[in-house]
Amino acid sequence: MQTPKKIAVVGSGLVGSLLAIYLKRLGHTVHVYDRSPDMRTVEFSGRSINLVMSNRGWKAMQDVGLEEEIRKIGIPVDKRGIHLQDGSFVTQFYGKEGEAIFSLSRGVLNRKMIDLAEEAGVDFFFNRKIWDISLATATLFEGESEQGQWSELKYDIVFGADGAFSRIRHRMQRQAMFDYSQEFMSLGYKELHIPANEDGTHKIDKNSLHIWPRGNFMLMGLSNLDGSFTCTLFMPFEGENSFEQLKDEKALVDFFATYFPDTKEVIPDLVNDFFKNPTSYLAIMKCYPWTYEDKVALIGDSAHAIVPFYGHGMNAGFEDITILNELISNYGDDWKTIFSEYQKSRKPNADAIAELSRRNFIEMSTKTADEKFLLQKKIEKWFSDKHPDKWMPLYSRVTFSLQPYSEALAIGDFQNKIMEEVMQIENIASKWNSEEVEKIILQKLTTSIGLLD
Amino acid sequence: MQTPKKIAVVGSGLVGSLLAIYLKRLGHTVHVYDRSPDMRTVEFSGRSINLVMSNRGWKAMQDVGLEEEIRKIGIPVDKRGIHLQDGSFVTQFYGKEGEAIFSLSRGVLNRKMIDLAEEAGVDFFFNRKIWDISLATATLFEGESEQGQWSELKYDIVFGADGAFSRIRHRMQRQAMFDYSQEFMSLGYKELHIPANEDGTHKIDKNSLHIWPRGNFMLMGLSNLDGSFTCTLFMPFEGENSFEQLKDEKALVDFFATYFPDTKEVIPDLVNDFFKNPTSYLAIMKCYPWTYEDKVALIGDSAHAIVPFYGHGMNAGFEDITILNELISNYGDDWKTIFSEYQKSRKPNADAIAELSRRNFIEMSTKTADEKFLLQKKIEKWFSDKHPDKWMPLYSRVTFSLQPYSEALAIGDFQNKIMEEVMQIENIASKWNSEEVEKIILQKLTTSIGLLD
Repeated sequence: MQTPKKIAVVGSGLVGSLLAIYLKRLGHTVHVYDRSPDMRTVEFSGRSINLVMSNRGWKAMQDVGLEEEIRKIGIPVDKRGIHLQDGSFVTQFYGKEGEAIFSLSRGVLNRKMIDLAEEAGVDFFFNRKIWDISLATATLFEGESEQGQWSELKYDIVFGADGAFSRIRHRMQRQAMFDYSQEFMSLGYKELHIPANEDGTHKIDKNSLHIWPRGNFMLMGLSNLDGSFTCTLFMPFEGENSFEQLKDEKALVDFFATYFPDTKEVIPDLVNDFFKNPTSYLAIMKCYPWTYEDKVALIGDSAHAIVPFYGHGMNAGFEDITILNELISNYGDDWKTIFSEYQKSRKPNADAIAELSRRNFIEMSTKTADEKFLLQKKIEKWFSDKHPDKWMPLYSRVTFSLQPYSEALAIGDFQNKIMEEVMQIENIASKWNSEEVEKIILQKLTTSIGLLD
Repeated sequence: MQTPKKIAVVGSGLVGSLLAIYLKRLGHTVHVYDRSPDMRTVEFSGRSINLVMSNRGWKAMQDVGLEEEIRKIGIPVDKRGIHLQDGSFVTQFYGKEGEAIFSLSRGVLNRKMIDLAEEAGVDFFFNRKIWDISLATATLFEGESEQGQWSELKYDIVFGADGAFSRIRHRMQRQAMFDYSQEFMSLGYKELHIPANEDGTHKIDKNSLHIWPRGNFMLMGLSNLDGSFTCTLFMPFEGENSFEQLKDEKALVDFFATYFPDTKEVIPDLVNDFFKNPTSYLAIMKCYPWTYEDKVALIGDSAHAIVPFYGHGMNAGFEDITILNELISNYGDDWKTIFSEYQKSRKPNADAIAELSRRNFIEMSTKTADEKFLLQKKIEKWFSDKHPDKWMPLYSRVTFSLQPYSEALAIGDFQNKIMEEVMQIENIASKWNSEEVEKIILQKLTTSIGLLD
């Protein structure tokens, strides 16, 4: 058991709320601050991409006994449903039979997490703006405005779970020896909406992650419990097929008729949604160190904001909590070691999921429309089913395993090299599931087995 | 001629002061703000690396007629003087006969630049702290402290010449679509001092840039007009041969006796200097965009802080001014185009000198002690002397030419590939200046001539 501390968590998002539950159960006093109103009292929509919970997220839920509660508000999604431009629809299963990610509405999940944290005894302080921190003393500075009067809030430990634009990190950034980068994508996104049928059922398959891959842009859709879908249009801000071009109703309707004709029926409010909802930015933030002595630690997006194309922003943040919790078990009250091991352990994995996520845009927007790529995935799945001990596809490693992201990335690169060679085999399309191909893959694996886990 | 504007330059460093002179001569009202006292009234030492002016810097001086004035306060340095650990001393000329860089004391040069700017009619405001800016209105916010009362200073155009930790950039960083990175080196530096002889002469050759290359650390020295040298010790903060290890007088004196025995005579105040002067950090800052509409522009270190190993921090900043001035000539009052073209033109070159500078630490600290490297440089120089139209060594491109840094880097990489092959020739050490080697290089150049300018 740990010596009880007075701990502040800045940010009541998913990671902040779950972390608060963990810390409260360890016996600490836990105060969560958020600059926004309590999201349970306000509408939450217009700029959200649905979440998918996968094994890393579930692991963090299980350890604190919340899995069952959360499964009730999610929908299992076991495959990609790919809407090709010629009107055909193909599916690609994510894993083995029974493996699925879970589609969750961000608003619904976050409200639930805050409820659960309050039940656990966490105190929430909404509409309280934290502008700055004294790192050496874990003192927060709070006030109405950045230039106004601030009051001091003194804690033993502060967690910055305040997201991609973290104020806690902002202070750390002004220390020497603090590495930091922010990189904005040339791609933005906009939320669109597929409503439920009148009887509350879904208009399209609720167990697919729907993608309309169109090269440098794409539309995707994830189901909600109420029968609706949250859709997200990803496209460049400028240039060919960009937000810049869709400046009036006619341009928008023509564009959708050309590229997403099958959405006409299911997105009735396209024009209204499109011009009402903001166009949001995508950015990758990296930094190091993540902690300051035994006083302050960044967690989740504040330490590693990534792009959403692998669906792992929340999962990576929840895994931060799992690792932190393990270290607390190992090191007890030695918060200096806990924080130091935490950042050393998580940093390479955060960098790896950042890289995997960046790459996955190309996979989703371009490769899923490519026959050769679909064949490659089919071969991988076939070989993996035959030799589950020898081949776990990258997606499964990332999503259905708890293998560190950095290992998954390294092994994935190795597997991809083998698959590139396999795809060069003559007539591969006709003999993809032959003994000959199986032997070739086995041979290639054996000669470099040292790289495999 | 331009329409006169009211322009603020934040920062009275070298780039800020020179820029102010340019802008004043174009007919603008120019106010320079600096958070520090007027450096002409205070001592300026203890954490400075001497500057070297090379062709890009001189170009900016020439265009505004200041070259002659500044040459008087500098000392030409035409070679590296390499102090090997065995006590031997070898030299390596930087360029052709008559080509030299100029050693300048930062304090002396900066004070002179401020004098010249005031003579030109620029107004300086010292001890005036700029904390923030409204980018859209070019309004500066000034006050005693960050949390205190601020007053507004309204301009037509603001230049952020406020260095690596720029407040102007800090505001830009909080805009969407602003890419930024800061990366600290694991290496720090400390200023040491070689005093003049009693008769005012230099204790070691004043026309050499002295290096004591020792692998992961090095000492360097640059001459001052008063007969002294400003020396800089670069070494890691932690680990083997690091600042961390030199924690007391005995450790320090032993260390210098082992690695820099020939400095014992010339650095009499080693212990005092070492423990009095701070250990300073080295960082690389990059960002983009550098400008905000026709209102605000970053220039010099605020846009591109680099490590000092190529001696190009000031030169790159002065070249920003040269390019900006050319664009002003081309586009007159169209500041939007001037700023847009300025950042597009300078960004790839700033990135290139950042990379060249980072690489040059290895060259200075390690390669200059390597016989093979010295031979390679000798071959390059010999070939370049014979075929000046076909081969300008990378150092000369960067230092004695005005070729864009990005081109210099690309061509330097190409030349290096050729030299690596040349160094593989059997018995190269004995026949390095033979017709055979000359022909081989000519041959290699011809087969890939497309890459050369």
